[in-house]
Amino acid sequence: MRTHNQIKQASYRLQIDASLEAFFVDNVNKAFLVNAHYANLWKALQTLNLSGGKRLRPQITLMAYEAFGGTDIPAILPVATAQELIHLAMLIHDDIIDRDYVRHGVDNIAGTYNKLYATLVGSVEDRTHYAQSAALLAGDLLISASYQLITTASIIPQKIIAMQHLLGTTIFEVAGGELLDTESAFYNGEISAEIIAYYKTASYTFISPLMAGAVLANASKEDQTLLRVFAENLGIAYQFTDDIISVFGDESKTGKSTTSDIREGKRTYLVEQFYLLASNDEIKQFESYFGKQEVTTEGIEKVRHLLIATGSKAKTEESINTHIELSRAALINLGFNEEYNKKFNDLIILSTKRDC
Amino acid sequence: MRTHNQIKQASYRLQIDASLEAFFVDNVNKAFLVNAHYANLWKALQTLNLSGGKRLRPQITLMAYEAFGGTDIPAILPVATAQELIHLAMLIHDDIIDRDYVRHGVDNIAGTYNKLYATLVGSVEDRTHYAQSAALLAGDLLISASYQLITTASIIPQKIIAMQHLLGTTIFEVAGGELLDTESAFYNGEISAEIIAYYKTASYTFISPLMAGAVLANASKEDQTLLRVFAENLGIAYQFTDDIISVFGDESKTGKSTTSDIREGKRTYLVEQFYLLASNDEIKQFESYFGKQEVTTEGIEKVRHLLIATGSKAKTEESINTHIELSRAALINLGFNEEYNKKFNDLIILSTKRDC
Repeated sequence: MRTHNQIKQASYRLQIDASLEAFFVDNVNKAFLVNAHYANLWKALQTLNLSGGKRLRPQITLMAYEAFGGTDIPAILPVATAQELIHLAMLIHDDIIDRDYVRHGVDNIAGTYNKLYATLVGSVEDRTHYAQSAALLAGDLLISASYQLITTASIIPQKIIAMQHLLGTTIFEVAGGELLDTESAFYNGEISAEIIAYYKTASYTFISPLMAGAVLANASKEDQTLLRVFAENLGIAYQFTDDIISVFGDESKTGKSTTSDIREGKRTYLVEQFYLLASNDEIKQFESYFGKQEVTTEGIEKVRHLLIATGSKAKTEESINTHIELSRAALINLGFNEEYNKKFNDLIILSTKRDC
Repeated sequence: MRTHNQIKQASYRLQIDASLEAFFVDNVNKAFLVNAHYANLWKALQTLNLSGGKRLRPQITLMAYEAFGGTDIPAILPVATAQELIHLAMLIHDDIIDRDYVRHGVDNIAGTYNKLYATLVGSVEDRTHYAQSAALLAGDLLISASYQLITTASIIPQKIIAMQHLLGTTIFEVAGGELLDTESAFYNGEISAEIIAYYKTASYTFISPLMAGAVLANASKEDQTLLRVFAENLGIAYQFTDDIISVFGDESKTGKSTTSDIREGKRTYLVEQFYLLASNDEIKQFESYFGKQEVTTEGIEKVRHLLIATGSKAKTEESINTHIELSRAALINLGFNEEYNKKFNDLIILSTKRDC
C-alpha cells in the first residue's frame, strides 16, 4: 500500500511534469509562428526535458511550501517549475563548458544539433560550433523563461518580484561557482572546494528551491534562517558525497564514471584534503596518475589507495558527517510536524547516501 | 549654442551611463564577496561596457517615455538601462557564435580572458575554450541582471511585470533571430532575410525599447499599435541599410569592414535580391567570389558590380525607402508635438543614413 507521503510525492511529480510539458508545448507553438527551424530548437528542449531528471528542485520547493503551512500548490506551481527550467539552462550551458554531448544517456542540445546539421555542414569543426551555438541560445531562452514562468504564478506581484530576486541571487551565485570551478583547474589550490560546492551546487540545488517554498508560505524570518542553514550544509554534504562517489562509487549502481574525475584531475574537496595530508613522496606518486587522460586501471587503483591511506577519504567523510549534523540540528530547530520532519530527513538521506 | 534637444540628449546619456556604472560597481563588489576571481569577470564586463556603444536602446526608451507625456525619468531609468544590459548580453553571446574576440576595437570578454589565461593554460584550444566559457557565463549573468534591474524601477509591481514580459518577448525573438541567422548559412534561401532582420534586429533594437517607454507613459493602445508599426519598419530599414553599408560603405568613415560579409557569404536581403534578379551566368560569376575567404580585391569589386548591375542594390534601397515611408506615416499618425516629432524623425535619419 502506498503511504500518504508517497502519494503526495507522486502527485508533486505529476503536477510538475504537467506544468513543464505545458510550458514546452506553448513555446514550441510560439516558435512555430516565427519559423519551423526555430520550433526545432524548442522541440529539442522539450525532448531533453522528457529524457530524465528527478525534478528534485521543484519537488523540494513544494515540500518546503507545504511544510510551512502553504496550501495552494496550483497557485505556486510555476515558481517550482521555474527551478527546473533554471536547472536545465545551467545543465545545457555546463555541457557546453564541459564539451559534453550526452545528458541522461541521450543527446543533449548540442548533441541533437550535431546530428541535425550532419548533412548540412561539411566541416566537423564548424558543425560542432554551430551545434554549441544552438545550445548556447537554448540556455539563454530558459534563463529568460524561468523569470517569465514565475510571473504566471497566482500570487501577489510583490511575491513574484521576491521570487525573482531569489532566482537572480541563484544565477549570480551559480555562474560564479561555475567560473571558479573551471578556473580551479589552473589556479591550483587557490579556490577552495567548499566555496565551489556552496556556489555551484548548494545555492541552486537546495538553498533557492527551499527558500522559495518557505517565502511563499510566509515562513518567519527565524525559520528562514534555520532553513538556510539546513540547505547550505546539505548542499555541501551532497557535493562532497558526489565527489566520493565519483572516485569510489559503484559504477553499475550509479551509472556514473568513477575514473573521469581522476583522469581530468578535478580539484574536489577529497583531493584538497590529499594535498594537505600527503607526504611529498605520496604527492609525487599521486601526480604521476592524477590528471592524466591515459591513466591505467592500476593507476586509478593507486590513486584510490593513496586517497584512503592518507586519510583524505576519511577526512572528507568526516566533513560530510559534520555538515549532515548541522543540517539535522537546523531541522530539529525548525520543529516541523512528524510528516514533514520525516520528509526533510529523507531528503538528507537521499542526498548523501553513498551506495547510489 | 546647444539646443534644448541636445541638452536633453546629453542628459539622457549621462543618466544612463551613471546608472550603468552604478550597476557594474555594485556587482563587482558583490562578486568580490564570493571570490576575487569572480570579481574579475564583472570587472571585464564593466570595462566592456565603458569601451563604447551609443546607448541607443536606453535613449529611445527615455525618448518614447517623454514623447507620450512621461515626466519621471529617474523612476523609470532602470528599465531603460536594462535595454543596454540585454544588448550587451546579446553582443557577448553573438561574439561567441561569430568567434570574435574584439568589440568596439578592444578585447571583448573572450578576448580579455584569452589574455588573462595566457600564462595559465598552455593549450591554445583549451585556453580559447575557457575564455569562451567565461564569456558564456558573463552573458548569462547579464540576461538575469536585466530582469533584476527592472525590478528596481520606482513603478508599481504590475508595471514591473509588464516590462519583464516585453523583455521576455524580446529575448524569445532575438534568440530565434540569431538561430535563424546562423542557420541561413546552410539552409540556402529557406529563411528570408526580412524575417531575420525583424527577429534579430528590429525586435530588440527598436520595438522593445520604444514599447517600454510607451507603456511606462501609459500610451493608448492605438498609439502603441502605431509605435509598433513605426519600430518594426524602422528596424528592418536599419538592418537593410547596414547590409548595404557592409558591402558598399566607406570603411574610413564607418570603421566597418566592407569585405567580410562577402567573404563569409552572408545571405542578406541584398544577396537575396541578387538571386531573384540575376541570370544563371551572373550567379555563376557571383559564386566564384562570394563566400570565399580568400577573395581578391578584384573579386570584391566584381561582386559589387554584379549587385549593382542586376538591380539588387536598387531593389534593396527601394525596400529601405518603403519601410522608411511606413515608419514616417506611423509617426505622422502618432501626432507628437514638434519637439518629439523631430526627435523621432532624427532617429529615422540616424538609423538609415548611408554614409556613416
